[in-house]
Amino acid sequence: MIIVSIAGIKKELQTQLIHNHPDVDFRFYKKMNEAEKDLPVADAIITYGENLTAENIQSANHLKWIMVISAGVERLPFQAIKEKNILVTNARGIHKIPMAEYTFAAILQWCKKMKQWTVNQDKRIWSKYGLEMNELAGQTMTVVGTGAIGGEIARLAKAFRVHTLGVNRSGRKVEYFDEIYTISEIERPLTRSDIVVSVLPYTPETDHLIGKKQFDAMKEDSLFINIGRGNTVDQAELLSVLQSRKISAVLDVFEQEPLPEDHPFWGMENVVVTPHFSSISSLYQPRAFDIFEKNLLLFKENRTDLINLVDLDRGY
Amino acid sequence: MIIVSIAGIKKELQTQLIHNHPDVDFRFYKKMNEAEKDLPVADAIITYGENLTAENIQSANHLKWIMVISAGVERLPFQAIKEKNILVTNARGIHKIPMAEYTFAAILQWCKKMKQWTVNQDKRIWSKYGLEMNELAGQTMTVVGTGAIGGEIARLAKAFRVHTLGVNRSGRKVEYFDEIYTISEIERPLTRSDIVVSVLPYTPETDHLIGKKQFDAMKEDSLFINIGRGNTVDQAELLSVLQSRKISAVLDVFEQEPLPEDHPFWGMENVVVTPHFSSISSLYQPRAFDIFEKNLLLFKENRTDLINLVDLDRGY
Repeated sequence: MIIVSIAGIKKELQTQLIHNHPDVDFRFYKKMNEAEKDLPVADAIITYGENLTAENIQSANHLKWIMVISAGVERLPFQAIKEKNILVTNARGIHKIPMAEYTFAAILQWCKKMKQWTVNQDKRIWSKYGLEMNELAGQTMTVVGTGAIGGEIARLAKAFRVHTLGVNRSGRKVEYFDEIYTISEIERPLTRSDIVVSVLPYTPETDHLIGKKQFDAMKEDSLFINIGRGNTVDQAELLSVLQSRKISAVLDVFEQEPLPEDHPFWGMENVVVTPHFSSISSLYQPRAFDIFEKNLLLFKENRTDLINLVDLDRGY
Repeated sequence: MIIVSIAGIKKELQTQLIHNHPDVDFRFYKKMNEAEKDLPVADAIITYGENLTAENIQSANHLKWIMVISAGVERLPFQAIKEKNILVTNARGIHKIPMAEYTFAAILQWCKKMKQWTVNQDKRIWSKYGLEMNELAGQTMTVVGTGAIGGEIARLAKAFRVHTLGVNRSGRKVEYFDEIYTISEIERPLTRSDIVVSVLPYTPETDHLIGKKQFDAMKEDSLFINIGRGNTVDQAELLSVLQSRKISAVLDVFEQEPLPEDHPFWGMENVVVTPHFSSISSLYQPRAFDIFEKNLLLFKENRTDLINLVDLDRGY
C-alpha cells in the first residue's frame, strides 16, 4: 500500500508513522510538484486540502482515500472526487481548543488595550488610569456558527460572564448559548453585540453571508472576529466599514491568502491581521494524525466507515 | 457630617454622592496637601490608602471612619488608627473580575506569542507556522493566595482546562483548585507549574515570601505573574532569575511604585511591566462607591457593623 503525503509532516511524525505501519510505503513530500510523479500509484493521499486539482485526481488511478489534515475542504475538486467514488476524511474536532484560545486572546487584547501596554512599556510610561480598559464580564457576544468551535467559544464566554447569542441554520438550541437565532434573523443579535465572532465554514450557502447589511447592524465600538473562512465575508464591505466606522476587527482568514502585502488591512490601527493560524499549535499535527492512524487501520481492512467522513454533497 | 475625600473621585460620582446624601458636607480633593486643612473637622475620610500619615490621623480629631477605595491597606498608619479606635473599611471583593481578566489577558499574550503578532503585522509578514504558539489547555498553574481573586482566577483556569494548584496559609480546600498546599510547602506546586500567579496581600508574614528558593523551584519556560503586592517578592532575586533563566514575568506591582524609569525590567524582552492597574476598569469607582454608600447609611445611624471592616491586627 502506497500513501503519498503532500502535507509537510514533521520529521518525528514521519518516523512514527513508518514505525507504526511497516506494511505501508509512505512517500513524504512538501509540495504537489514533487509528489505528482507518485500520484498514479497512490492508494491514499494526505493533504491540507489546498493543493489538489481535478487533474491530480484524474491521474491518481489507484486512489481510494484522501485524508485532509484540516477542517475546511472547500478547495477540493469535489466533482472529480465524486466521479471516482473516493473517500474523503478531515481533521474536524481538533480545532476547537486552539481556536477558542486564539479567540479569547484576541478579545482580551482588544478589551484590555494590550497593544498599548507594549507601547507604554517601550516608552517607560507609568500610566495607571490612562488606558480605559474595559471588562469582558457583562458584554454580549454573537457567535455565527454553533458547531464544535462555536460551542467551545460560547463555553469560555459563559465562564467570563458574557451573554452569548448564537446563529445557526435551524435555530436549534445549543449548550452555552443564552439565545439562538437562525441565519435569516442574523441582524437581530448583531445589533446588540459588543463582540461578533464568525466561525462559518465556506459553502455555497455561506458565500458572502456577512456583508453590508450585517455590518450596518453592528454596534459602534464593537469587535468583529473572523476565524472561519475569508469568503464568508464581503471583504470590500468590511474594509469600507473599518475605514469609516469605530469598529475593530481581528482577521485570521481572507478572500485571498496569503493576504497581499499591499492590502490596507495590514496597516490599519483597528485591524489585527494574523496568517490563518488560529488553529495552529504544537499539538495540531499529533492530534490530526491520531485521526489518520485510526482511519488507516480501518482502511487496511477495506472498510469505508472511516472517522470524520466528509459529505461531498453538503461540502463539509 | 463632614466627609473628606482624597481619592480623586470622578465628577459624575461626586455629583451622585452630593445628590444622594444632602445631609453630608462632602469635601472632594485629589491630594493630601489640599485636604489637610479639613482633616480636623472630618467625620470620615475616603482614600486609596496610600497617602495617610500618623500625623494626619492625629490631627483628625473627629475622625471615626476611613473608607479605603482599594483592597491593600498596608500603607495605613495602623498604630495611630488603633489608638483612636477608628473604623477602617475597604473595597475588597470588587477586584476579582478585572484582575482575573487581566491575568488571562497576560497568560494568553504569553502563550500565543501575541507581541510577535503585532511585530509580524507591522512588517506585513504572513508566517503561518513560525510562532510555535502553545495551548493553555493542559497546562498547570499555581495560584499563591486562594481568596476571592485567586478563586476567580482558578475558576477561569478550570474553564480553560488548566490544572490548578493553590497555596494558602492553612491548606484548606478551596473550590476550583485541584490541589491545595500550605505556604510552608510552596516549592512543591512551583516545581510542577507552567504558570505561577501571586495575588498575595502585603503583611509582615508575606514580606519577601517569594524569593531565591521559590524561583529556583520554578520550571524553565514558565511564567510568573505578580498582581498582589511588590514587597511579597524579593525583587532583586526576581531580576537575577529573569536575567539568567528562561522564565518570563508579567509584573503589575513592584517594591517601589512607580517603577523607576531606569529599572532593567522596563527593557527586558521576557518581562511585561504594567503600572499597578490590573484591577482598574471603568466600573471600579462605581462598584467601590456602592460599598461606600451602603456603609454611609449605617454610619449615619452610628452603627459600627460596617461592610468590609478591616481587622487592624491581622492587617487585612
